[in-house]
Amino acid sequence: MQIAMVGLGRMGANMVQRLTQKGHECVVYDANTDAVKKLTAPGVIGAASPEDLVARLAKPRSIWLMIPAARVDQFLTELTPLLDEGDIVIDGGNSHYHDDIRRSHELKQHGIHYLDIGTSGGITGLQNGYCLMIGGDQTIAQQLTPIFEALAPGIDAASPTPGRQLGASTAEQGYLYCGQHGAGHFVKMVHNGIEYGVMAAYAEGMNILHHANIGKRAHDIDAETTPLRNPEYYQYDLNLAEIAEVWRRGSVIRSWLLDLTARAMLSDPDLKDFSGRVSDSGEGRWTLEAAIDQAVPVPVLSAALYERFSSRGDADFANKILSAMRHEFGGHMEKPIKQ
Amino acid sequence: MQIAMVGLGRMGANMVQRLTQKGHECVVYDANTDAVKKLTAPGVIGAASPEDLVARLAKPRSIWLMIPAARVDQFLTELTPLLDEGDIVIDGGNSHYHDDIRRSHELKQHGIHYLDIGTSGGITGLQNGYCLMIGGDQTIAQQLTPIFEALAPGIDAASPTPGRQLGASTAEQGYLYCGQHGAGHFVKMVHNGIEYGVMAAYAEGMNILHHANIGKRAHDIDAETTPLRNPEYYQYDLNLAEIAEVWRRGSVIRSWLLDLTARAMLSDPDLKDFSGRVSDSGEGRWTLEAAIDQAVPVPVLSAALYERFSSRGDADFANKILSAMRHEFGGHMEKPIKQ
Amino acid sequence: MQIAMVGLGRMGANMVQRLTQKGHECVVYDANTDAVKKLTAPGVIGAASPEDLVARLAKPRSIWLMIPAARVDQFLTELTPLLDEGDIVIDGGNSHYHDDIRRSHELKQHGIHYLDIGTSGGITGLQNGYCLMIGGDQTIAQQLTPIFEALAPGIDAASPTPGRQLGASTAEQGYLYCGQHGAGHFVKMVHNGIEYGVMAAYAEGMNILHHANIGKRAHDIDAETTPLRNPEYYQYDLNLAEIAEVWRRGSVIRSWLLDLTARAMLSDPDLKDFSGRVSDSGEGRWTLEAAIDQAVPVPVLSAALYERFSSRGDADFANKILSAMRHEFGGHMEKPIKQ
Amino acid sequence: MQIAMVGLGRMGANMVQRLTQKGHECVVYDANTDAVKKLTAPGVIGAASPEDLVARLAKPRSIWLMIPAARVDQFLTELTPLLDEGDIVIDGGNSHYHDDIRRSHELKQHGIHYLDIGTSGGITGLQNGYCLMIGGDQTIAQQLTPIFEALAPGIDAASPTPGRQLGASTAEQGYLYCGQHGAGHFVKMVHNGIEYGVMAAYAEGMNILHHANIGKRAHDIDAETTPLRNPEYYQYDLNLAEIAEVWRRGSVIRSWLLDLTARAMLSDPDLKDFSGRVSDSGEGRWTLEAAIDQAVPVPVLSAALYERFSSRGDADFANKILSAMRHEFGGHMEKPIKQ
Repeated sequence: MQIAMVGLGRMGANMVQRLTQKGHECVVYDANTDAVKKLTAPGVIGAASPEDLVARLAKPRSIWLMIPAARVDQFLTELTPLLDEGDIVIDGGNSHYHDDIRRSHELKQHGIHYLDIGTSGGITGLQNGYCLMIGGDQTIAQQLTPIFEALAPGIDAASPTPGRQLGASTAEQGYLYCGQHGAGHFVKMVHNGIEYGVMAAYAEGMNILHHANIGKRAHDIDAETTPLRNPEYYQYDLNLAEIAEVWRRGSVIRSWLLDLTARAMLSDPDLKDFSGRVSDSGEGRWTLEAAIDQAVPVPVLSAALYERFSSRGDADFANKILSAMRHEFGGHMEKPIKQ
Repeated sequence: MQIAMVGLGRMGANMVQRLTQKGHECVVYDANTDAVKKLTAPGVIGAASPEDLVARLAKPRSIWLMIPAARVDQFLTELTPLLDEGDIVIDGGNSHYHDDIRRSHELKQHGIHYLDIGTSGGITGLQNGYCLMIGGDQTIAQQLTPIFEALAPGIDAASPTPGRQLGASTAEQGYLYCGQHGAGHFVKMVHNGIEYGVMAAYAEGMNILHHANIGKRAHDIDAETTPLRNPEYYQYDLNLAEIAEVWRRGSVIRSWLLDLTARAMLSDPDLKDFSGRVSDSGEGRWTLEAAIDQAVPVPVLSAALYERFSSRGDADFANKILSAMRHEFGGHMEKPIKQ
Repeated sequence: MQIAMVGLGRMGANMVQRLTQKGHECVVYDANTDAVKKLTAPGVIGAASPEDLVARLAKPRSIWLMIPAARVDQFLTELTPLLDEGDIVIDGGNSHYHDDIRRSHELKQHGIHYLDIGTSGGITGLQNGYCLMIGGDQTIAQQLTPIFEALAPGIDAASPTPGRQLGASTAEQGYLYCGQHGAGHFVKMVHNGIEYGVMAAYAEGMNILHHANIGKRAHDIDAETTPLRNPEYYQYDLNLAEIAEVWRRGSVIRSWLLDLTARAMLSDPDLKDFSGRVSDSGEGRWTLEAAIDQAVPVPVLSAALYERFSSRGDADFANKILSAMRHEFGGHMEKPIKQ
Repeated sequence: MQIAMVGLGRMGANMVQRLTQKGHECVVYDANTDAVKKLTAPGVIGAASPEDLVARLAKPRSIWLMIPAARVDQFLTELTPLLDEGDIVIDGGNSHYHDDIRRSHELKQHGIHYLDIGTSGGITGLQNGYCLMIGGDQTIAQQLTPIFEALAPGIDAASPTPGRQLGASTAEQGYLYCGQHGAGHFVKMVHNGIEYGVMAAYAEGMNILHHANIGKRAHDIDAETTPLRNPEYYQYDLNLAEIAEVWRRGSVIRSWLLDLTARAMLSDPDLKDFSGRVSDSGEGRWTLEAAIDQAVPVPVLSAALYERFSSRGDADFANKILSAMRHEFGGHMEKPIKQ
């Protein structure tokens, strides 16, 4: 089957490779012409412009976008006039599902179909496949079944869930039609919200293990410092890479994110290549907003997101307020940073 | 190798079976004599009392306890006088690591060795093996290597971590010597702290998916109720069992706990067999206490634990205070529970 | 000065009384005609309908709305055609500031001015005055200075802030022009967000005091229950009403909300008149949404809101998921509720 | 009445002054002899050593300690042999209430009485009085009534709570016998736990106000940055000092901590004198530990403490783990810090 891929970053480029490996033909475009050149190969046709892209596709066209969410609307403004009735535009990036609902209406005016497909898998997706969460018209989604089959990990990627009737659902292949417009990105949004929470759980736990020898260090005795009451309980020099590794087998918390943690800590046990400024790409925020609209309590997911905000210095002003209050009521001065 | 198992509940009984399947001889004891009888089989010798247990073991003895943490000290008081120098007592339950440190000193007075072994795996451990986190004297721990090899999942239980030198560490088998007395339960404690956080992340996310159709319901209009501003964004009837299933393949959040979630939701999509009163068995609390001692921020792990407390009604008095304050300043009356 | 008040609930009715006590004339309207009748008195003119209300006001009219946020747009649809250029509409309720921005544009089409005024003070505002946070055109706001002076608490309501030049700002009277359209409700929104956090801090602390005698109770010993390690530390029967009272004098946490807590606990120490289902009226949610947009971490304000959600049962499904997971991996059954 | 004060820091020195102003005689000691000299005046007798202090006191002696919690045990070791049966030692600092219980037993062996008195008021206590929370034997506490009357703020420090019978309790004066040994510091501990929560609520809210103009700034468009969806909603330049001031009158969140915030922001609106590294002095941690023992959920109090930990860099390792995970699964690189 023929499909266009727009946006040849880490995700898009790998998806093109997986699709061509499975025998599909990809017409590819990126504003960065080097990215296009680099990918061109048998089964991969480079396009020089959106016009060129559209021209190289047989009708009805299927155009999959893997570009930053903030650029999708602008690109659609450019793309829409070039398309014909019956064409399908897929947003596989990290768009807000509100935008999907709006865009699906806008494109429908022109007879163009729109699918929102939450795509998870990261840079290992090329090898392992991508988990696809699909929103839009079900009949349109079904037209792309061969593409989904190629991108998804397939049934062998996990052991069967006891009690499932085999073949009853595409979920076992790793792709799922979730519901009307926006449902794909809604489910992907929550996936990422969960991801933040799960990651933070490991990170906090690892931080505790990292401090397990704190009792070996001397502490200040003054009114500004809480004494460690029981230094004898914090005398362990733990090997975090080994602990992450042992947890991968048999423990309740084994997971792919733990696999990655074990990998990262093996090569850089002190994580000295990182400063600890953690980005967020939006879905965590939108997950919270959905929960707040629903009055669903999400303290864990929130805490995970706020840790990222704080890691980037966004709590600084609040902390200064706290220090200012303490100075007012107790004459407390901040302790200088130790050199 | 011969080993004694005390405590034949879910965990202990399965471990005995796994050990005997691998050719070890188990002498078993439980205060509940039916549990002993039920387990007796070739390779499994039932004991009628602690005295009987000790008598049936060749010296130096190895006695593994899988009993509730609150009963360990009492049992050790009974057991210690029966033992000889050089015997080994293993606490494989969920003891507080502070207790391990104390007990190791107490038993040392009698020449008895003590190991604390955090044991993870749950009821599927019989088949999949147990993840073992070991604390105590390393030379003593090494004497039990055949037992650990039998209980642990083995290297095939997970794919190799890229960059690891094969055989460099027992972590790849699923057991690890972590450090001095208490280190095993310290690492297991943090494991469980993480477990609470990971579980809560999934649970909160699933709760958002569960409420994705809230826009279909009518809402009260009064000063006590926040109107849902955008009901059009909450019109999805999502199939949570299918979503859990699709996430198992290729998604960033695939994990064993997600496998279990998919299983649970398949058989009971509305979870009507559960009331939502969630127990905690202590390690989550101790994880927080360690973090607080260390001044390590753990907002996610804390929120996860507090959700369990709240689920059992322990926030009720605080909530009444809130209602009382609102009544005082705004004359607000609580909304009655809808029937 | 003449002003109209629409919405004669707890807040609106009291504001009318305070205004007339200070010599202003109020024309009042409420869909509930009894509320109108009840309030009619010298200086208070009842109106039978929006038309009647408008007719009874001299131009340019000032109409202050104190109605549920969810009803404002509908009422404005009815009211706008009745108004003339130069009239002023004030929303003193708890509208979302996004709506203020939109409405100000809509009304501007008809030459009508709009002010958003966050109004705090609760049912004691009649006696103590109201704190007013004002958004809109500053010149329009200034036209209402006599009304603000009458409603606000006045300078004597708090001791002077050291270093302030007296009379330099109306903030010392208790009202403040905050900025363009929406600024008043934005500041009020954050005020309420803080309010939730402050209330929760007291409520959680009181809950700890309430449980200070937990060591006197016996506890279950089983694998589902965490034993209380140190019952000797929880033997206090504390008198919470007295503690709230003593904190009112000299403590760092003295506040008006504490005054109210002392009052509530004096009359009902066990708070048996309350069930603990705590409403939220929206500003706490919007505060979080603003913080999320800004990437400002607000773990305390979030936790406070989520406690309210949980108090109303909105965590139930998440908790069932947790129980289901625990059942899957450990065979744990939920503990039944004690009778 | 005669009383000794040991520890002449901010708190102790002011308390001596307040006591002598009210006609009491103070014998004072501090390891820092300058602090002693500086305070000596009519009614204040300086002591050169613990021995000298004890010698200058009439029996039975009352000795009030206002020294860092970490130094109390060491000082008591020195002091106890110098004392006689019937003497009273008061710990007015921030000791852990567990230590009070232990010390009261130790001192009882020597016939010495012990009171734990949580003391709140900060540097303004000299003028406004101190809130006293008292634990120990009630009959012993009553012997110090004149001292409590002098230190406490007195009944005029707050308006009467409606419904209270005047004179029914010393709580109205600002001091309260709370219960047996440790009860005073238990209540003070919770007071400080609440204090952290209340402070954080204001600080987070102020941080949101501080960022209310974020829509005026341009933002990066890339996959690592969440776009601000609605910059038009963040166009306010708010005057935080004025907002803090206006909230002091009539608002629901008026409090002494808000008074202090208004003061601090007036003199330094950008808080440039502070770096935002916030100390904690222990009670917040112990409050959490008590709550955890009790299974009382305290998400707000916890979040407040964790913000302080994070402000001092204690989340750094956790954040590096997050970055390392993101790098593993998505090839994400951290964004460099903007210059």
